[in-house]
Amino acid sequence: MNIQVADRMNHIEGSVIRQFAEAALKPGLISFANGNPSPATYPVEEMKKFFVEALNSDEVNSLLMYGSVQGYPPLVEFLKKRLTKKFGFDFEKNDLYMVSGGTQAVDVTSKIWLEKGDVVITEEPSYASCYNIFRAYEAKLVGVPINETGIDIEATEEALKANPNCKLIYTIPSFQNPTGFSAIDDKRKQLYELACKYDVIILEDDPYAELRFAGEPQNPIKSYDTEGRVFYTSSLSKVIAPSFRLGYLVVDKRFGQYVNVCKQCTDVHSNTLGQYVSWGVMEKTDYEKHIRLAQEEYRRKSSLVIDALKRTIHPSVKLSTPTGGMFIMMFLPESIDAVDFVWKGIDRGVVCVPGSGFALDGHKPTHSVRLCYSTETDENIVKGAEILGKLTCDMIEGRA
Amino acid sequence: MNIQVADRMNHIEGSVIRQFAEAALKPGLISFANGNPSPATYPVEEMKKFFVEALNSDEVNSLLMYGSVQGYPPLVEFLKKRLTKKFGFDFEKNDLYMVSGGTQAVDVTSKIWLEKGDVVITEEPSYASCYNIFRAYEAKLVGVPINETGIDIEATEEALKANPNCKLIYTIPSFQNPTGFSAIDDKRKQLYELACKYDVIILEDDPYAELRFAGEPQNPIKSYDTEGRVFYTSSLSKVIAPSFRLGYLVVDKRFGQYVNVCKQCTDVHSNTLGQYVSWGVMEKTDYEKHIRLAQEEYRRKSSLVIDALKRTIHPSVKLSTPTGGMFIMMFLPESIDAVDFVWKGIDRGVVCVPGSGFALDGHKPTHSVRLCYSTETDENIVKGAEILGKLTCDMIEGRA
Repeated sequence: MNIQVADRMNHIEGSVIRQFAEAALKPGLISFANGNPSPATYPVEEMKKFFVEALNSDEVNSLLMYGSVQGYPPLVEFLKKRLTKKFGFDFEKNDLYMVSGGTQAVDVTSKIWLEKGDVVITEEPSYASCYNIFRAYEAKLVGVPINETGIDIEATEEALKANPNCKLIYTIPSFQNPTGFSAIDDKRKQLYELACKYDVIILEDDPYAELRFAGEPQNPIKSYDTEGRVFYTSSLSKVIAPSFRLGYLVVDKRFGQYVNVCKQCTDVHSNTLGQYVSWGVMEKTDYEKHIRLAQEEYRRKSSLVIDALKRTIHPSVKLSTPTGGMFIMMFLPESIDAVDFVWKGIDRGVVCVPGSGFALDGHKPTHSVRLCYSTETDENIVKGAEILGKLTCDMIEGRA
Repeated sequence: MNIQVADRMNHIEGSVIRQFAEAALKPGLISFANGNPSPATYPVEEMKKFFVEALNSDEVNSLLMYGSVQGYPPLVEFLKKRLTKKFGFDFEKNDLYMVSGGTQAVDVTSKIWLEKGDVVITEEPSYASCYNIFRAYEAKLVGVPINETGIDIEATEEALKANPNCKLIYTIPSFQNPTGFSAIDDKRKQLYELACKYDVIILEDDPYAELRFAGEPQNPIKSYDTEGRVFYTSSLSKVIAPSFRLGYLVVDKRFGQYVNVCKQCTDVHSNTLGQYVSWGVMEKTDYEKHIRLAQEEYRRKSSLVIDALKRTIHPSVKLSTPTGGMFIMMFLPESIDAVDFVWKGIDRGVVCVPGSGFALDGHKPTHSVRLCYSTETDENIVKGAEILGKLTCDMIEGRA
């Protein structure tokens, strides 16, 4: 056989994170590696109830048959109402489509917009799996820095000027993966204005939107979207459960036909019983209380990791201060290579992920590490953070 | 906003079937329109049991967390064993990946192989949703005829000669959608030999494989695949339930990495609870009995529709004789336009789908109609078939 795979397959790189995620499987290791939600937040009893309810209901045959491409209608309606109330989204102008996780929202958005050679501007560091999706559509990626107030607006404008074939800006404005940084309102508005000025689409990836536990609420960029150029996606992975593979995409109605046809060409629709159960949890239980408990879970765990790190890190190490979500980033001095730090951490029983796992070029040295504090026990969070804190001192002072 | 969607979006056409599927929603209409499984085959009680079992189990946290890209391991193992036993698949050389329905298998296969301008050879008529998937990758489609013994081998070789940039042959060898035709063993082997001779991939789409109710079992083309060039896909939609959105893709191990990375770039993995429940039904109940009952259901319904048609159709109308699956095709004389026939059928209370719904150019006249006999009651099947039979006489004899 001499037949060659499509060229796009040569652009997709294996995940740098994966090797650390695999290292994290070693028994006894404390893991800050995987970007997973806290299992304590799964509404397991409610799931049981609503799966059985669905299968006992009069509509069981339609719940098991091919379903609506757009999504299970009561869930679609619930989410539209909630997003209107919470963020002021305008569903006269927009529509909402269920997708099979936020990843599929990025795939569908890419399929709609990206041609070979188009430029995607992205925060860097960012969620590297999305880099791969953009690369699968043979886009060229251009990174711009992000700091504690959000994406660097000046650098973004420079990148837009330098790349007139930019089609899309990819941003995670809230509790960003991997930094934990959140964009302030001004930055969100400025980024939207830039998108209008340079006529590009914003793909706003907002999976942690519900997990704010400190600071003032901020509206998504989508809430400023008078021109219909923001594709907004969020996920049920962090509020229901990742294994349901459910998320949603909110787009201006004039693009709805494209989302619809892409979804038909991908998996037709997302699994219906998972949508029914999610709707049950949202509509028929105290969902606000469920969200508050999740926020409290992440607030407590973030405090534990921050307090333990602050007690033990070398004074030259900086930390991000998340106001929501599940990530914190440690910024090591330039003398310390992040990959080296991570392997030494594993030797001492704690695994986290080096910044290279979130860089456009995963082979260049980085000096930051991501800690995800959502899945370990409180005790292990403190213990793991102290081990890493001490490791910063030992490495910086030449003892490791 | 002046920004343009990607050119691929201009190649994807709206479904011709959809308008008839929508017409089928009119209350009181007898529907042979949708290619849906019979709800009588859903294992609803078993589903209830296994959803609850999953959520009560010790592994509940991992069943709700992000799961394996390849699929829930016990289900993957079950399917590998079953395919080895039933069809002689070789899992020393191949591997199996769970996907989110057969549609996603076609999307993933296209993503791996197809470049802009590549040719895909497909049976025509065939499942038009797949035409759209290939078009989304900007492939050029070339149709070859199919008859009661399977794809036309000579026409396929001519198409291969005429299109040296052919990358892929798409075939539904068993109980094809829309014709109900099944390829005999010789054709399967000959098609595989052609694929080897012209160095192309075969995408073997086999969602009805389990639903044979007459004639001798035939092995999938994949079972002859010594060179590893057959991508084999089947679905759980027809044996468990469509709304689970589960299927699988069997590929030579050297292409497994590509399936894996495509799946990561699409929806990461398929919904885990649906996989757990499917595995439960397969491994922990009498699955062979479940399959036999489904086969019997389709056998009975196919007999009902065929007997009623044979009693009533005009002698110049030909019928396919399905030995499995859920489709039968009526071949009208050339004087009758299929779209005209279908609209007249709707006027008389029965909806089916014209051949144009399965043609590469859906706007050209066709003279065949697809009847899907799986979802209506026995009584309605007979009544509906008699109405259509009488309509053939009335139209051919100039009374309608």
